[in-house]
Amino acid sequence: MSLDTVLSKIDDTLPEATARLMDLLRIPSISTDPAFKGDCDRAADWLVAELQGLGFEASKRPTPGHPMVVAHSRGEGPHLLFYGHYDVQPVDPLSLWDRDPFDPEIQDGPRGKLIRARGASDDKGQLMTFVEACRAWKAVHGALPGNLTLFFEGEEESGSPSLIPFMKENAAELTSDIALICDTGLFESTVPAIVTMLRGLLGEELTIRGPSKDLHSGMYGGAAMNPIRVLSKIIASLHDENGRITVPQFYDGVPELPDAVRAQWQNLAFDHAKFLNDVGLSEPAGEKDRTPLEMIWSRPTCEVNGIWGGYTGDGFKTVLPSEAHAKISFRLVGQQDPLAIRENFRAHVRSLLPPDCTVEFHGHGASPAGMMEIADPAFEKARGALTAEWGRPASYVGCGGSIPIAGYFKSILGMDAMLIGFGRDDDQIHSPNEKYDVESFHKGIRSWARILAALA
Amino acid sequence: MSLDTVLSKIDDTLPEATARLMDLLRIPSISTDPAFKGDCDRAADWLVAELQGLGFEASKRPTPGHPMVVAHSRGEGPHLLFYGHYDVQPVDPLSLWDRDPFDPEIQDGPRGKLIRARGASDDKGQLMTFVEACRAWKAVHGALPGNLTLFFEGEEESGSPSLIPFMKENAAELTSDIALICDTGLFESTVPAIVTMLRGLLGEELTIRGPSKDLHSGMYGGAAMNPIRVLSKIIASLHDENGRITVPQFYDGVPELPDAVRAQWQNLAFDHAKFLNDVGLSEPAGEKDRTPLEMIWSRPTCEVNGIWGGYTGDGFKTVLPSEAHAKISFRLVGQQDPLAIRENFRAHVRSLLPPDCTVEFHGHGASPAGMMEIADPAFEKARGALTAEWGRPASYVGCGGSIPIAGYFKSILGMDAMLIGFGRDDDQIHSPNEKYDVESFHKGIRSWARILAALA
Repeated sequence: MSLDTVLSKIDDTLPEATARLMDLLRIPSISTDPAFKGDCDRAADWLVAELQGLGFEASKRPTPGHPMVVAHSRGEGPHLLFYGHYDVQPVDPLSLWDRDPFDPEIQDGPRGKLIRARGASDDKGQLMTFVEACRAWKAVHGALPGNLTLFFEGEEESGSPSLIPFMKENAAELTSDIALICDTGLFESTVPAIVTMLRGLLGEELTIRGPSKDLHSGMYGGAAMNPIRVLSKIIASLHDENGRITVPQFYDGVPELPDAVRAQWQNLAFDHAKFLNDVGLSEPAGEKDRTPLEMIWSRPTCEVNGIWGGYTGDGFKTVLPSEAHAKISFRLVGQQDPLAIRENFRAHVRSLLPPDCTVEFHGHGASPAGMMEIADPAFEKARGALTAEWGRPASYVGCGGSIPIAGYFKSILGMDAMLIGFGRDDDQIHSPNEKYDVESFHKGIRSWARILAALA
Repeated sequence: MSLDTVLSKIDDTLPEATARLMDLLRIPSISTDPAFKGDCDRAADWLVAELQGLGFEASKRPTPGHPMVVAHSRGEGPHLLFYGHYDVQPVDPLSLWDRDPFDPEIQDGPRGKLIRARGASDDKGQLMTFVEACRAWKAVHGALPGNLTLFFEGEEESGSPSLIPFMKENAAELTSDIALICDTGLFESTVPAIVTMLRGLLGEELTIRGPSKDLHSGMYGGAAMNPIRVLSKIIASLHDENGRITVPQFYDGVPELPDAVRAQWQNLAFDHAKFLNDVGLSEPAGEKDRTPLEMIWSRPTCEVNGIWGGYTGDGFKTVLPSEAHAKISFRLVGQQDPLAIRENFRAHVRSLLPPDCTVEFHGHGASPAGMMEIADPAFEKARGALTAEWGRPASYVGCGGSIPIAGYFKSILGMDAMLIGFGRDDDQIHSPNEKYDVESFHKGIRSWARILAALA
């Protein structure tokens, strides 16, 4: 009965909730670019003020990077920790955006209204679903639900350099019975999902150096080593003709999918053709004899996320550059060891260097894959709540992305995590014109109210 | 006698001549970047004013791109046309410059004073050697030397798109007995040289497209085609294990060096180890069993001058980009046909494309290699004048760079060209901290005075 009142309250106050989200979206909290440091700080302050207004004991907690936001509400029931991140991806190429990424707008979309802005889906919109569920709960009950800790990070899009030290230093304060993480999506746009399998991530940046300075390709071309050619050759060699990654020992710890899980995934009716067609593709580009769903949920990858070298401006410059650069990331599964792969990758690249070339590496994030323990009854309770809200049976699924926080909750704080989110495949997260469906936001808030009622 | 007076005049007025060059160097006439269009125009105006001040009938001549400067002085003797270019290369990476590239300064160098600025050597300093020789000549003789046309271009560093149409439209005005081109260097820093063999140049820019938008490498990595990987594979395949270029029919029209020429080049005492060591290298990177001098003077090349795609900023972004780009150039020799190679290259790249990828090409300059007819007695006269000035026998040499103008003078205006210049290998043209030795400038002016006396 009182849950229905909370749900009605959520329905009635959706415009105000949406307006608050848009306020948060106006803060350009790009964590990877030092130019936006002040904005990250401002986003944290905004959240602290919101949470304090709701009655949380909330504070901004400094780190060597961007601050954490931690909030508590001590009540009855199991201790739940909710995690989200207030930082967002960079917006380039800005020219491909239809409007200012930090001037959010409600627009018409294929599934009703949507909110267009950087961070609308990843992760400000998702984070606010939980905050708004708490707000409606309090409006109806006069108190916040259960025994809650909210934990918001500002470095998720830049490798979370402060996260592990912060969790270790504040382990007693943060350790809860279970964590709720809202940074994932629905399955195929209408089926709610709890992610139980997450890929890890290893990021590496490399610089290949050849000549001691940029050269004129007329004076030296043909005789001098060109680092772009060297880098291209290295990248070209990282996959064999079957799409397998050639770094030695790379597949150590990669499990084959159990037959039961493979069967469950086949039942998901994942439309492989549509998955590719939606982004202009027709053939899976990964390992031969794997389906796209296997490729993105259960197989490791090596991708080049960026490359640059020489003259990249308008017109032409016949330079033979002294340096070439790439950003390369690996998605990891099973028991793959990120640090061992980092060493093997670096040794492999060094073994491919021709004479007169050197390489310099800069490591970015390194997190192992994660696998949740769904035996905890909280999983089935949350699955029931999601099924009730969306009218379709909620599924346990894998996730191609890396949400290292889930692994850290387990390894540092000893607690399992439920990854529940309401994003959709067409949200264009990390891309121009990111959006979040108002339906995702609205039913996301309602979903959390139901889950809180079931768990708290 | 009067030549000696001219040479003395040059010696006495060197400071003023240097100051004028520095005025020209202050104009950032970067032709390839549209942002500097006004500056290119300003450089042309500056030259017109200088030449009019010397008594030339000089004018700025509009083109669809940057203007030409044409000046005449009708006198006795053979009609000589002098060519140079007033535009300069871009200056990036600016961070590697020790000072503002367009704030020239006289500095101490290994061979006495030098002039540090973008364009000091390529080509403003070289161009002004001829102008200053004319000025000294006039000061002594009361009239400009012989029957001269000066022809200055402002698009040499950006593929000379207006050059051929302009030469065709003004063929009668420009056609002379012989052309003098000042855009090359001394041989090994002390030996004057006349270039008789020039490589051609073909520039191609390509964009590989895969997914219809930038993707999240977690959501799609492994399953979606990555255009950076495709581009890297194409670039890696352009050379075989022996350093030969794999584009079909690429070597059609590439002559073997005649034994006599090879012997002459061996006598040049070119220090191959030093040539490479000077730029931090130890092994020639081109075709196996060719010397570096052969590689840069007589062999064709394929070089990547620029590459870019995905996220290239600070930090890390796990994007799987929808596009990747490269600028690739070919140096051509002998009878290689630039347009046939362009078509073969494009077909070759298309043949390497995996499913779901497309390629778009943008052609930059396309000029064949050039070979001068040294039977014309003007060559031996000029060689004698250079030998007298520098005290070392002047040589006929090859040039790895592409100076398409020499080929156009032959094919469009039917005249041979003498390529005589005073640059040095350490001038850092096209690189940060470009410079021109004051000795190059000074003895360059004196060289032209001697050549004018010999030819006019």
